[in-house]
Amino acid sequence: MALGNVMVGQSGGPTSVINSSLVGVYKTAKDSGCGTIYGMRNGIEGLLQERYVDLSMYIKNDLDIELLKRTPSSFLGTCRYKLPAAEKEPEVYKRLFDILNRLEVKYFFYIGGNDSMDTIMQLSNYAAAINSDIRFMGVPKTIDNDLAVTDHTPGYGSAAKYIASAMKEIIRDASTYSTDSITVVEIMGRNAGWLTAAAALSKSEDCNGPDLIYLPEVVFDHDKFMKQVSEVKKYKNAVVVAVSEGVKTADGKYVCEAGKTNVFEDSFGHKMLGGTALYLADFLSENTGIKSRGIVFSTLQRCASHLVSRRDITEAFTAGADAVLAALNGETGKMVIFKRISNAPYSIITDSYDINKIANAEKCVPLDWITEDGTYVSKEFDEYARPLIIGELTPFMVDGLPRHLFIDK
Amino acid sequence: MALGNVMVGQSGGPTSVINSSLVGVYKTAKDSGCGTIYGMRNGIEGLLQERYVDLSMYIKNDLDIELLKRTPSSFLGTCRYKLPAAEKEPEVYKRLFDILNRLEVKYFFYIGGNDSMDTIMQLSNYAAAINSDIRFMGVPKTIDNDLAVTDHTPGYGSAAKYIASAMKEIIRDASTYSTDSITVVEIMGRNAGWLTAAAALSKSEDCNGPDLIYLPEVVFDHDKFMKQVSEVKKYKNAVVVAVSEGVKTADGKYVCEAGKTNVFEDSFGHKMLGGTALYLADFLSENTGIKSRGIVFSTLQRCASHLVSRRDITEAFTAGADAVLAALNGETGKMVIFKRISNAPYSIITDSYDINKIANAEKCVPLDWITEDGTYVSKEFDEYARPLIIGELTPFMVDGLPRHLFIDK
Repeated sequence: MALGNVMVGQSGGPTSVINSSLVGVYKTAKDSGCGTIYGMRNGIEGLLQERYVDLSMYIKNDLDIELLKRTPSSFLGTCRYKLPAAEKEPEVYKRLFDILNRLEVKYFFYIGGNDSMDTIMQLSNYAAAINSDIRFMGVPKTIDNDLAVTDHTPGYGSAAKYIASAMKEIIRDASTYSTDSITVVEIMGRNAGWLTAAAALSKSEDCNGPDLIYLPEVVFDHDKFMKQVSEVKKYKNAVVVAVSEGVKTADGKYVCEAGKTNVFEDSFGHKMLGGTALYLADFLSENTGIKSRGIVFSTLQRCASHLVSRRDITEAFTAGADAVLAALNGETGKMVIFKRISNAPYSIITDSYDINKIANAEKCVPLDWITEDGTYVSKEFDEYARPLIIGELTPFMVDGLPRHLFIDK
Repeated sequence: MALGNVMVGQSGGPTSVINSSLVGVYKTAKDSGCGTIYGMRNGIEGLLQERYVDLSMYIKNDLDIELLKRTPSSFLGTCRYKLPAAEKEPEVYKRLFDILNRLEVKYFFYIGGNDSMDTIMQLSNYAAAINSDIRFMGVPKTIDNDLAVTDHTPGYGSAAKYIASAMKEIIRDASTYSTDSITVVEIMGRNAGWLTAAAALSKSEDCNGPDLIYLPEVVFDHDKFMKQVSEVKKYKNAVVVAVSEGVKTADGKYVCEAGKTNVFEDSFGHKMLGGTALYLADFLSENTGIKSRGIVFSTLQRCASHLVSRRDITEAFTAGADAVLAALNGETGKMVIFKRISNAPYSIITDSYDINKIANAEKCVPLDWITEDGTYVSKEFDEYARPLIIGELTPFMVDGLPRHLFIDK
């Protein structure tokens, strides 16, 4: 007899490996004898509108599975929808559980970051309150690497690999002229500097890495910044600086807010950042007279699936697979986590952890992994992050372009 | 007996395949029995300062050759130096020929774009005037694809492949939300829209391509732009627009100049562009209220050697190799060109062509390859450009990052 049906969704900002977790859920649920495996379109928001698909209509064979692993962005579509508190709007929960019960869903998986884990927490707490036997499991996903408890998050390794690789190429490009120049590279990460720190991974036998790195964990000071850049400028003609989009001045204002006319906010109240590099490049041009260029990785750092970390792809799959195994084993209200056993040789084990202790928490780069002057990261960061970018997954190239799996709308 | 010595240099903006041309020159000259193969550091500017290297000190074996093919940016360093007219500053020419004669150089190769071909023209004309037997050959290179006479230029295919691949990933990323959004992607190309047009190559079985494409060949009109975007917005929630950094309004002003405090110019008088996408995204936000994002490929489109076109790499090598063979055959004052025999199956032949008819000319996208409303490119462009992005050259990955060959400074 088939086990119950499955509902899986993707939420929040996409990554290059979020679909590998989807495949991990799908394949493991299927192989374990679950019934229909539904995918919600655009996360919980779409599910509330009863928009979902039978995933077997799209993932038809093992080639599709491999293709989906190589497909960036959220295959099922995503959302930034915050579930209201159950006490305030119980009808939302009633509607959701009605839909799930009607579809005979017993296992619910949500692949996402901080905000998505809030959804799993709300739903599993509500289920406990109404004695529902539906099991709710979170699958970690975020390029930001800012989820609590877990050693790291699927998505981070590939974004870090992209950043480090592109950084090497940019440094080589910037250094080819004998004229003076300053390049400011803007990297994602609202409050946590994990991604910006990954710029340091470009340092290798054939590359010196960026000259300065500014994380959001450290207060940004325009005067210090000018001085530090000028100091490097003394012995190098081409200076390359990595800076987080989320750097803030002492008054708590984002650097990129200077001169912006309108700053969008999403439903979680997060400001849409951007413009830091161009602003700082202009600032440096004006104050030094040196040609300065701003480069922004923008969404490429989360969707460049043509350059993923094989380890990240595998771990993302495992996170999805383990969430299914845990749910089948009776667990609910938990998220799959990674525990680091050792850096070299790299070794992790997976576990599952109480979602109430993960949701809405945020893990930043430890301050003792940042150099005293606040312009670089330490050896400890390198030892932690470098294993996460190892290995490649060759894209499926068709007529010169990476091929993706897609849902025909 | 060894033939004469060789001097080779790289000039202008780097590309992902400019070092493949360098390898083509090096290997062919070596295999043909030339003497020492010198590489000028930072082009003609460095040579005037007597900065050059013996390339055999750096390219020691076939592995180095393969590594150099995979190394982005100009291995020897580059410059943006304009040779003065020989009548005005004959001492510059005298100094250069003194250096070349002292080094017993008989063959001079310069890998570059429009401005670099001007250098070859000046030098070969001067050589003729003083009856020097040094032979000067140009090797085409530019991501902009704007060199006259040749069917296309080495460097364009890889930049086009990067743009088309990244575009696919960006479109997939932008389309994953069910909310409204407009993404404006800025692509290089001062006056010629070849690179921006390459965004159309992202259109494939699994991707609809960008919705609108704005080339610098067409006058940019803010009102029309607003109307065209709004029209697409009616039937799609996520609009993606590709726009050249070089689009100009009817008054001849670059769109990106609006609101800029200082615009740098290089020694050829070219303005340093940038900011078009952010400016237009802000413009759309303000006028539509829809969340708009600007994405700029910046230098990544010319240095992302981790994603090159195999065909481009091979042709870049051939261009360098054929320049050597032509010079050994007695030719001088010419540039290697490609002639297209057929699109399907793709076939080209190489030839060499009088540099006086190439230097300082500029080839734009033919207007009849642009749709009547000026928002897309035609089938003819597709048939021309698609063969150029075919095939891959796997990067040499070491510890998760692409490895490059480099000169220790």
